[in-house]
Amino acid sequence: MSEILRVGVAGVGTVGAAVARLLKRQAKALASRTGRKIVVTAISARDAGKKRDADLSDVEFFADPVALASSNKIDLFVELIGGAEGAARKSVEVALAAGKPVVTANKALLAAHGLELAALAEKKHVALAFEASVAGGIPIVKTLREGLAGNSIDRVYGVLNGTCNYILSRMELERLSFEECLKEAQRLGYAEADPTFDIGGFDTAHKLAILTSLAFGVTIASEAIDIEGIERVTLADIEAAEELGFRIKLLGVAQRTADGVEQRVHPTMVRKTTSIAQAMGVLNAVTIDADAVRELTLVGPGAGGEATASAVVADIADIAKGVRSAPFGLPTATLEKLKRAPLRQHEGGYYIRLSVPDVPGAFAKIATRMAERGISLESIMQHSPPDQDGPPLGRPKAARRVEKKAKPGAAAVGVILITHATSEHLVREALDDILADGTIDAPAQVIRIERE
Amino acid sequence: MSEILRVGVAGVGTVGAAVARLLKRQAKALASRTGRKIVVTAISARDAGKKRDADLSDVEFFADPVALASSNKIDLFVELIGGAEGAARKSVEVALAAGKPVVTANKALLAAHGLELAALAEKKHVALAFEASVAGGIPIVKTLREGLAGNSIDRVYGVLNGTCNYILSRMELERLSFEECLKEAQRLGYAEADPTFDIGGFDTAHKLAILTSLAFGVTIASEAIDIEGIERVTLADIEAAEELGFRIKLLGVAQRTADGVEQRVHPTMVRKTTSIAQAMGVLNAVTIDADAVRELTLVGPGAGGEATASAVVADIADIAKGVRSAPFGLPTATLEKLKRAPLRQHEGGYYIRLSVPDVPGAFAKIATRMAERGISLESIMQHSPPDQDGPPLGRPKAARRVEKKAKPGAAAVGVILITHATSEHLVREALDDILADGTIDAPAQVIRIERE
Repeated sequence: MSEILRVGVAGVGTVGAAVARLLKRQAKALASRTGRKIVVTAISARDAGKKRDADLSDVEFFADPVALASSNKIDLFVELIGGAEGAARKSVEVALAAGKPVVTANKALLAAHGLELAALAEKKHVALAFEASVAGGIPIVKTLREGLAGNSIDRVYGVLNGTCNYILSRMELERLSFEECLKEAQRLGYAEADPTFDIGGFDTAHKLAILTSLAFGVTIASEAIDIEGIERVTLADIEAAEELGFRIKLLGVAQRTADGVEQRVHPTMVRKTTSIAQAMGVLNAVTIDADAVRELTLVGPGAGGEATASAVVADIADIAKGVRSAPFGLPTATLEKLKRAPLRQHEGGYYIRLSVPDVPGAFAKIATRMAERGISLESIMQHSPPDQDGPPLGRPKAARRVEKKAKPGAAAVGVILITHATSEHLVREALDDILADGTIDAPAQVIRIERE
Repeated sequence: MSEILRVGVAGVGTVGAAVARLLKRQAKALASRTGRKIVVTAISARDAGKKRDADLSDVEFFADPVALASSNKIDLFVELIGGAEGAARKSVEVALAAGKPVVTANKALLAAHGLELAALAEKKHVALAFEASVAGGIPIVKTLREGLAGNSIDRVYGVLNGTCNYILSRMELERLSFEECLKEAQRLGYAEADPTFDIGGFDTAHKLAILTSLAFGVTIASEAIDIEGIERVTLADIEAAEELGFRIKLLGVAQRTADGVEQRVHPTMVRKTTSIAQAMGVLNAVTIDADAVRELTLVGPGAGGEATASAVVADIADIAKGVRSAPFGLPTATLEKLKRAPLRQHEGGYYIRLSVPDVPGAFAKIATRMAERGISLESIMQHSPPDQDGPPLGRPKAARRVEKKAKPGAAAVGVILITHATSEHLVREALDDILADGTIDAPAQVIRIERE
């Protein structure tokens, strides 16, 4: 057995403490697997005296993570500080510059500076590993970078944010509103007091930018992502989805198209029978479409101290064994510049919910406007929003697939269209026409359908 | 870039040709990822002149795979001959002895001789890689060996045989009998003329033995597996499963218990809402329960030329990069000898279908015998087999959960029990009593329930 691998951990919260615990718990197996004894020898944290859920009594404490990063008392630096700038960025740069391999869970840092950091790691011939930065305990980075090395990847998409998935799952299972579920998630600690970063889709976007680079051999371009959050998803949408055999997930999707690479984050209809639809609650899931393997789906925990630590420790073990890959699979200098495919060119099916104040004749007017743009409809149906039917009783009401006459003085009713594959801009144009016609009394709810 | 990696492929059928195609198609990316140009320079196959679905015109032909294995014209040997003995075994031994890394898709060889071969590979400091041997294109070996290196694994289970999964899926989706679906599978080439190896569970057992070793750090013990095939699964079982919210899969399950390691292959009830239940048709799926990551599921293609080749090429790429792990994760000498847990000690829930000739009082008699063994029932219900109701009309009939009086002269009816977790031997003993009582007129159908 060669020498001890001395690990320094900066940021000792839930994940950092779990990393220390796992490295101790699995010490014997890891030494046997990697040929080296792996030991946390130093940490850095804001509060030296804080009680932590790990035995760190024999470990040197650094007040400054940057000092830890360059210390000759460690051989490998684990960055768990978080954030795209500040101490996180500085300490990772310093560690790499000092020729130390780095393991990080920091998606924001990678989304913003991943390429420079990867180039620095390559220049110094050390590893920069970040399995924990995307989808927590799911080994998706390894799968894309190594497991599918013989594939050309066409699309990668996933449920990448546990907060959003928890909220959407609760809405579906408990027939609660978005607002109620968000409050509950905040109470349980699954959502922040200011939940924008999660529910607005920004966290998913950071992770998606990393997956896109790994999957397609392109540069990280987190600014070239079309992002919609889940704030506008209503219980009416959730129920209509269920009736139609779909489930609504916040997906991050990266896809090669003739126009470049689409990167989009938005609420999405996925068929209930797909593997990705089974990821409920705080679970994450990622599906990869590739030429050789066709479709591969990984489902597992996207967050949590031990699950995230599992990914960190796997990276540490690879480094201990001497494995060195280019951080994004291909050497950074050879990554192609990502060409952004415009969202208006996106091709796919659409779920469209319209609020129609005056039903008679409305189906005809709507169908005509769609036909003018060459949009082919799979179905058009009336759907009563739940608040018109009193509280839901477990199962949603079956959709009525025949056109009904509006009762005199009735409130606006929901009309739901499912389109066959078409272009985003045609849908937007047709909906503008329908709004201008006065057929609908508010802008439409549009949710993209992701084909298997 | 360092020197070319010269690959020799023995056995050039569907998978071998796909490996050659993939290595060519991805030549540039693989060279960039691994730092080496990877080229198939030699092949061995039974028929030199056979037309193959790959351009092999510039490749040297060896009539004898063993001669190819030791040839100084290759740096890496790919074994795709198949079979636990003969040319497959001999050529792998010769290649390893000659200090050449080996990539194989041969589960039978590994199940029978994996430990000796791994020991030989370690002695010669070369890789023995076999991602393709289990679950085709799903990177389950890499996930267990590297991705979950920081975990202690409690259970691994999977749908590992596409033939069985195809048959069970067709039975469920088309309401066809086992025999009809088997014939169809044979016509489509998904099942062999003699299907015993697949439907009897033996193929699944080979794969399970490999997963068990990887997951638990124990020796391969394919002789210590309890195996039941799918031949006895009836449409009545499939329908009852559906009504109860389950789906029947042929699972290979390896589980740590207080008594040792359970390795079992049998038809299994899994909840329809689980990720593993979504693997339909020829798909495979594997779920891992581990201490840190909790539950991780991978779903993907278990067979097919390109999907299997994807796994072979990933192994080749790792070797090209210089990655070397012990074949089974831990050094072979340190693998613990597997202690077989007896199946009669298995703890779990059970689905039990009984054929009851005389219904009045039968529920009471059955429930009493179960209670005598301390078996707690979740439900007991009468279930009409489909042949008593005429051809099924898409949806199964709802189970009647109330006891009905038998019509005079009525045929035997099905009674279905679902037990809470109990011990296998208690179930067997209770059923022996019920049979001896004359309450049932044939041995019970027993299908184990696998908890999430």
